[in-house]
Amino acid sequence: MNKIGIIGSGNVATHLGQALRKKGYSISFVFSRSYNRAEALANNLGAKPINDLKAVNSQGDNDLILICVPDQAIAQTIEQITRDTPIAYTSGSVQLETVPERDYIGVFYPLQTFSKERAIDIESVPFLIEANSESFAESLHSLAGRLSNTVLSANSEKRYQLHIAAVMVNNFTNHLYSLAANHVEDHKINFDLLQPLIRETVNKLDYMRPEEAQTGPARRGDYKVIKQHLNSLSGRTRAIYELLSESIKEKYNHEL
Amino acid sequence: MNKIGIIGSGNVATHLGQALRKKGYSISFVFSRSYNRAEALANNLGAKPINDLKAVNSQGDNDLILICVPDQAIAQTIEQITRDTPIAYTSGSVQLETVPERDYIGVFYPLQTFSKERAIDIESVPFLIEANSESFAESLHSLAGRLSNTVLSANSEKRYQLHIAAVMVNNFTNHLYSLAANHVEDHKINFDLLQPLIRETVNKLDYMRPEEAQTGPARRGDYKVIKQHLNSLSGRTRAIYELLSESIKEKYNHEL
Repeated sequence: MNKIGIIGSGNVATHLGQALRKKGYSISFVFSRSYNRAEALANNLGAKPINDLKAVNSQGDNDLILICVPDQAIAQTIEQITRDTPIAYTSGSVQLETVPERDYIGVFYPLQTFSKERAIDIESVPFLIEANSESFAESLHSLAGRLSNTVLSANSEKRYQLHIAAVMVNNFTNHLYSLAANHVEDHKINFDLLQPLIRETVNKLDYMRPEEAQTGPARRGDYKVIKQHLNSLSGRTRAIYELLSESIKEKYNHEL
Repeated sequence: MNKIGIIGSGNVATHLGQALRKKGYSISFVFSRSYNRAEALANNLGAKPINDLKAVNSQGDNDLILICVPDQAIAQTIEQITRDTPIAYTSGSVQLETVPERDYIGVFYPLQTFSKERAIDIESVPFLIEANSESFAESLHSLAGRLSNTVLSANSEKRYQLHIAAVMVNNFTNHLYSLAANHVEDHKINFDLLQPLIRETVNKLDYMRPEEAQTGPARRGDYKVIKQHLNSLSGRTRAIYELLSESIKEKYNHEL
């Protein structure tokens, strides 16, 4: 694989495009429905911008088309590519059996959160690979292996379950940071004061399982503190505090 | 301040005792109701073990007694110390106005999560200081300044609100790691695969506010994925997934 076309211009397209180009792959085109977005990323990658999906079929030969679009757009995107170029998509949740059949179709899923403005250490990102043939799976495996130190074969079921867990450890923890930032800033306290605690919470995972690292009022069954805290919160934040405390209490077998 | 007695033998007592001793302070005694626990920590700190709280009053002169016990035991512990040694306690939630009055009483609150087995970088731990007199606050400030680079004055209200936020960013995120670990292990997947994602979630906070870093199905209003995920979960984990997704959707103004 040398010549790769990219469909999409979001966070995943940007980071994978840049990582592939850095490793010497040639990015032939970038498709986005917005010409401006296609052009911005294509310029960055030395590629041709396209904003008409059918035009993908009239591009020269490519070794791979990488589809980095939202889940609900993957199947219809694949349908419109009539050329027989091998295709891989980057989604955690879309099952391979549910997309249109082709000679070469596979999954190239980076288990990471990407934001455009932030450089990523691609070598540490686990890539999960699946394909409809062993030979194509091997090609995707070796492509991922050029980018990352951790490449695994994972069927759609395994990838799907990992994606659920990824939502919990990334989306939900980040939302808790948001709620905590709102809470302290409402009381004129700088959120940065909490950064050492946030870091240590994660550093502990190098040494112990999260079950063992659990501390706090719900863990030790300190209902007085929990009740005080609930009385100081309202709305969704209060509901989240209550539900998570109950879940912790339940796990550690305290009486309600 | 040179000679310090410690009441408590838990995670906070252990880490503060070790940090103080490392900085050259003399730890005179360690009290715990369990003699074995008192002895284990006292031996580690070159101190005398005590398991009778009244015996604290017959120890020689100390410059400070540091009370590192659960919140609900702080007031009654202070009551039993008849000697006029200055006292500080290490709680986030106990208000100074609610504990027995004394000539010198204050708060020495390290905003961090401690586990016994794990060494801590005490210099990066923010200490929040409060006391019933300016001179004692200054003493506690300078003591904390020997241990840490971040020492702040914070009244009980500010400390209390920070403690609520600390529960969110530490206790609750760690519980989400637990739930995610259970989930992937139920599907024979190694939790360590999620570690790069967990780290990056935190690293992003150096560059952007958590509001800006938010990604995922709830953030982009991808209800199909949310519904699929909910159908694959049950019990508390399902309830937590649903509530946090709704909270994210609400924050980013998607229609339900």
